[in-house]
Amino acid sequence: MKAAFMYGAGDVRVESIPEPSIVEPTDAIIRTVRSCVCGSDLHPYHSMPDSESGSPMGHEVLGVVEETGSAVSTVHTGDLVVSSFTYQDNTCVHCREGFHVSCLHGGFFGAVGVGLQAEYVRIPLADGTLVAVPDVDETGNGSEELLASLLTLSDVYLTGFHAATMGRVQSGQTVTVIGDGAVGLSAVLASRQLGAERIILMGRHTDRTDLGREFGATDVVAERGEDGIARVLEAAGGDRSHVVIEAVGHLPAYEQAMGVVRPGGVISRVGVPQYKEAPIGNPLFRENITITGGTAPVRRYLDQAIPHVVAGTINPGRVFDVSMPLSEAAAAYAAMDAREALKVMLVP
Amino acid sequence: MKAAFMYGAGDVRVESIPEPSIVEPTDAIIRTVRSCVCGSDLHPYHSMPDSESGSPMGHEVLGVVEETGSAVSTVHTGDLVVSSFTYQDNTCVHCREGFHVSCLHGGFFGAVGVGLQAEYVRIPLADGTLVAVPDVDETGNGSEELLASLLTLSDVYLTGFHAATMGRVQSGQTVTVIGDGAVGLSAVLASRQLGAERIILMGRHTDRTDLGREFGATDVVAERGEDGIARVLEAAGGDRSHVVIEAVGHLPAYEQAMGVVRPGGVISRVGVPQYKEAPIGNPLFRENITITGGTAPVRRYLDQAIPHVVAGTINPGRVFDVSMPLSEAAAAYAAMDAREALKVMLVP
Repeated sequence: MKAAFMYGAGDVRVESIPEPSIVEPTDAIIRTVRSCVCGSDLHPYHSMPDSESGSPMGHEVLGVVEETGSAVSTVHTGDLVVSSFTYQDNTCVHCREGFHVSCLHGGFFGAVGVGLQAEYVRIPLADGTLVAVPDVDETGNGSEELLASLLTLSDVYLTGFHAATMGRVQSGQTVTVIGDGAVGLSAVLASRQLGAERIILMGRHTDRTDLGREFGATDVVAERGEDGIARVLEAAGGDRSHVVIEAVGHLPAYEQAMGVVRPGGVISRVGVPQYKEAPIGNPLFRENITITGGTAPVRRYLDQAIPHVVAGTINPGRVFDVSMPLSEAAAAYAAMDAREALKVMLVP
Repeated sequence: MKAAFMYGAGDVRVESIPEPSIVEPTDAIIRTVRSCVCGSDLHPYHSMPDSESGSPMGHEVLGVVEETGSAVSTVHTGDLVVSSFTYQDNTCVHCREGFHVSCLHGGFFGAVGVGLQAEYVRIPLADGTLVAVPDVDETGNGSEELLASLLTLSDVYLTGFHAATMGRVQSGQTVTVIGDGAVGLSAVLASRQLGAERIILMGRHTDRTDLGREFGATDVVAERGEDGIARVLEAAGGDRSHVVIEAVGHLPAYEQAMGVVRPGGVISRVGVPQYKEAPIGNPLFRENITITGGTAPVRRYLDQAIPHVVAGTINPGRVFDVSMPLSEAAAAYAAMDAREALKVMLVP
């Protein structure tokens, strides 16, 4: 079967490897229906040292269950399933508290030797990791849109939703979203879903911010730095924002967030921080700013999100603007890296 | 009348100055019943450059209303009142959202030229700043304990309560409190009030941690650094804490908090940070740690807290271990600085 590997910065190859098989009784094997490239896959694409063995790539997948281990009880052969981008038992103390990415027995795809940009994948802890989509077949009941939206529940949309949830976005609030990548746009949609009244999207790519407006952004600010801060305040009639979602991960974006958050407000981060230290003394302390967010425990939201997507209440799959065969994964990475594509879907 | 001023590091003097009078129609004049020295008063006591004019000191007071401006309607001559340590209108957007320390028209005592370690004080924005204590006279109905507990509502107890509230302490949780000063001990009592099941107090002064146990600490850890972290985990059967209240303000205390907080947990800070930058990248991000807290909007909690204190449900005034005449304020500062006193009450 075909699977994507990265051998170093800028070096993605699709290779033929043996199909996976059940190893643990808690495993399931799924046949991939759709997979995709994540913005976070671009970090190693920029910086990975050369490797002889290569790293299996991909952590987002929609698939059909082919086979289950003897201990798997919640998904069955033939089910269309969404996998979260981490695997977990969904029963340990951290899972029960809603923080599945810290599961005592779980881990991250890729790191575990399983990449989800592949024709077939072995899913560890299948009961805790896969959620079946009832009454939808692998054609999305004939809707490519539905497949795309279901695929976003594997990571990108629910990462945006996590940002809004951790930010405690409430009805009537002003939310600023920093970053017009697929996660930032997802955070706009999620903030709208949670009732935000004014949503200010900070981004410079018109094609992306246009989609942001369709997702619910009431204002778009292209400027950055002090200018950007001034424009965000202006957009809200001089008021700072109750919640600022930082979907970039670089220090200037964090500083931007500090500049627009109101006293008692929340900075919710879902861009993986590319910094270790940052300012958190005054004025943040004096103004009671909360800093929250983190790697999204997608599994926590899956059961609730699937029916919304199936019913068409939300259509987060619109973040996919390009679709390619899995065999062209190298071109998919290059297109996202060159910002020619917002997010590329891979079809086996 | 007598009032305390600081003229430089270690140099506190009680001087005779004219009694204050109404300046704005929103002012009230109160006669001090009890005042006190705050741990935060020790920062300038260590570092204040010499000054010819001196700074008026004190921001905590329990008093009796002597006179009100023409626009004051909620407190009346003869009322026993608690003042919050900031003044505010209690009507602006930030006050309505519960963050009175960021009031658009408010400010901090001391900075405004009014110190509350004085026989009489002018309270700006009296309707937003003072809360009357019904059915209690200036003798605490004969109870010095009641006066002490009411005085803590001006700052120290409600600062601890704010820490627990921002940390979202819930029934059944494990809370670690770092710091055995009066704020840390108050945070222990507040965490107990909010239903925490296990409260681990980190502190090295046995007389203080003994009071912490009476306030509700289930465990005391005297060690610091890696040893301290190990002992905190041990106390909770290996589990990390849902909420860590950092009531010190120095970087090692923050690092201690990072070491004991569990995935998805909260670090709530009420020690004024003596650092500008701190680690907030991974692992905090990956583990979804929330950092919150800040200068306490005491006014938000006053209406609810006063009846609890009057009813004797809580007795936070036990943090006062020494009482001195206002005229001996210099000795009060020295005693707290030398850690001979936990918190000193000043009697006019």
